[in-house]
Amino acid sequence: MRILVLGGDGFCGWPTSLYLSERGHDVTIIDNLSRRKIDVELEVESLTPIRPIGERIRVWREVAKRDIGFVNLDLATEYDRLAALLAELRPDAIVHFAEQRAAPYSMSSPKAKRYTVDNNVRATHNLLTALVATGVDAAVVHLGTMGVYGYGWSGNAPIPEGYLTVKVQTPDGELEREILHPANPGSVYHLTKTLDQLLFSFYAKNDRLRITDLHQGIVWGTQTEQTSRDERLINRFDYDGQYGTVLNRFLMQAAIGHPLTVHGSGGQTRAFIHIRDTVRCIEIALQNPPESGSRPRVLNQMTETHRVLDLAKLVSGVMGADIAYLPNPRIEADENDLLVRNDQFLALGLQPTTLSEGLLEEGSKIAARYRRRADPTKIVARAVWRDSMEKADDLLTELPPES
Amino acid sequence: MRILVLGGDGFCGWPTSLYLSERGHDVTIIDNLSRRKIDVELEVESLTPIRPIGERIRVWREVAKRDIGFVNLDLATEYDRLAALLAELRPDAIVHFAEQRAAPYSMSSPKAKRYTVDNNVRATHNLLTALVATGVDAAVVHLGTMGVYGYGWSGNAPIPEGYLTVKVQTPDGELEREILHPANPGSVYHLTKTLDQLLFSFYAKNDRLRITDLHQGIVWGTQTEQTSRDERLINRFDYDGQYGTVLNRFLMQAAIGHPLTVHGSGGQTRAFIHIRDTVRCIEIALQNPPESGSRPRVLNQMTETHRVLDLAKLVSGVMGADIAYLPNPRIEADENDLLVRNDQFLALGLQPTTLSEGLLEEGSKIAARYRRRADPTKIVARAVWRDSMEKADDLLTELPPES
Repeated sequence: MRILVLGGDGFCGWPTSLYLSERGHDVTIIDNLSRRKIDVELEVESLTPIRPIGERIRVWREVAKRDIGFVNLDLATEYDRLAALLAELRPDAIVHFAEQRAAPYSMSSPKAKRYTVDNNVRATHNLLTALVATGVDAAVVHLGTMGVYGYGWSGNAPIPEGYLTVKVQTPDGELEREILHPANPGSVYHLTKTLDQLLFSFYAKNDRLRITDLHQGIVWGTQTEQTSRDERLINRFDYDGQYGTVLNRFLMQAAIGHPLTVHGSGGQTRAFIHIRDTVRCIEIALQNPPESGSRPRVLNQMTETHRVLDLAKLVSGVMGADIAYLPNPRIEADENDLLVRNDQFLALGLQPTTLSEGLLEEGSKIAARYRRRADPTKIVARAVWRDSMEKADDLLTELPPES
Repeated sequence: MRILVLGGDGFCGWPTSLYLSERGHDVTIIDNLSRRKIDVELEVESLTPIRPIGERIRVWREVAKRDIGFVNLDLATEYDRLAALLAELRPDAIVHFAEQRAAPYSMSSPKAKRYTVDNNVRATHNLLTALVATGVDAAVVHLGTMGVYGYGWSGNAPIPEGYLTVKVQTPDGELEREILHPANPGSVYHLTKTLDQLLFSFYAKNDRLRITDLHQGIVWGTQTEQTSRDERLINRFDYDGQYGTVLNRFLMQAAIGHPLTVHGSGGQTRAFIHIRDTVRCIEIALQNPPESGSRPRVLNQMTETHRVLDLAKLVSGVMGADIAYLPNPRIEADENDLLVRNDQFLALGLQPTTLSEGLLEEGSKIAARYRRRADPTKIVARAVWRDSMEKADDLLTELPPES
């Protein structure tokens, strides 16, 4: 397949691009390098030393004897170039990762809120408009988030895959309807993925676009088989308070002797997936698009659920680290159960990579190896999500000496 | 109250501004005059000769001895000026009409689709962000649309006001939940109002903004008590295939001897409201905002429902005109029933102005008076909503001689 990977330089996009390339697909990355530029703005870097995109692609050519294309293009503002590119390449499929993806960043300032909404909505809508305008019938696979559902909404019922069956009272009795699961986003970032869902539903109905929305859990792990083949192919590892996701943050914190930072009681249950499964899921989704004329296909891209505090205890037990309880910026229940259906990916052949000490060790080795690249003042989340929110102090401002 | 009217130069915004001004409120209009500029782009004009905004405001001062402020500002692109203005004026309430509001226009080209989404989402989100950033606790009243619900979704159950009670099956039995009514927009324009709803829900939850969303039916009528006080205060009357709404279009078509253009079978039932009730509803909504911390208040702003064909027959009967059946660009049932709840406005004191021959006559007089200003080639809707859609020919390219 000829595949465009929008946002192919990012944490999920890069390993996905390599995986699809190795599997024989003809991959072109479209990226405006915004993730790297936000690092510059935040004065922080990936813990792992990621190489410039041009070098990454050259090394991949050396290592795998496969070409990956690259176009530096801002989807949100360069519609005409996007449409021209679609008309020229006429891809069979498009993977759309090209959105600002950190909840704390999306809440950190009026500018960041506006950037997140403007960038994400326009990137998605420009893509859909350009597909219609060019008549390119590519299967679109978009990375959504489990956060569109909110948590604790449906009692002890498992979260279904995108659509919820409900009963509605009418004068003639009860009517059964399948609806898009009600949205309950916890941040402006998550909000944008709920907006995307409505865009997808409309363009699937009006223009018969074939769209799959993958509601992904929190990704953990860093490397895939492909990214670990050469150090210059290494994937991002974000440890900072804005972009670092919970399990990777814990591994990094333990590696430098920082307390593991839990927000609230840690009683929140979340869905997880390993980065190796992310890349597999993307290919499965690409190979199983919905039919033209059907509603978007929604799959939950996660393999297991864990309580945040249990993860902290696990990492703390294996690696020896304290746990620090910080204020929870989200408006949500302090504790929730979470059951999630992921029947579709299992039926389509996904073999889940679940949490194990062996895999944790891989992450902690990466964290230990690059610990000197960390800035300890960037670890604690400091974004103010709303008026008069409690903020946490730094817990460590200097790295401990090398052991 | 100190009230900002965003989009206060438009078809609903102008009469609302005058009404609120006459009722003793301190009104400032914020508008970038985009509606007038779209007229320039489409090479069409309001049938009624509307005056420049500066003149409108001067005449109102002469006639009513009341001052209305005006700031030319683009909400979607001038965030900093908006935030500064909020901080300076600290309004008690904000009426938000400032969105591209024509469904056919929103479907007419990639550029128009993108403009509609970019403009409407950013205008709304910039407003919400600026309110949070400045700490201005203004009640926000937004003009939504009945079109967010779609038509025919809930069988013969009346459309509730924003929220729908549903039952969800769980392992412990059925759970009752009140959810935002599922969205089923028929055009990119309507889609943007469904996006707005999610923005409102989030900012009401996270930042305790007080927001009312008014899902308005199709407005008919032209003048209010205030706009008819001087010809230079006259309201817009759009008759063209993109911005003309159905009942006003019929009146205009009858006035110039053009067949009444019905899309599809005309079996679609729609909700209606007279412009005089629109302005009253806005004031009622301003005076009854939700409490800080509650979900957005949603009211259906309509007073009656009619089948499109019945309206065509009514106008045809009164004024003598043929009916022409054109292709329906919308993906929707050819026929639908429509029951709509509007209990909240009735309970808050609205006295509905319902369809009557007397009021139709007022509209037909306006149409007849200004008929020479019409361009007959602009009457038929020609926007292509999707690939290979059937298009209609002009039915009249020259005005008949004066009778």
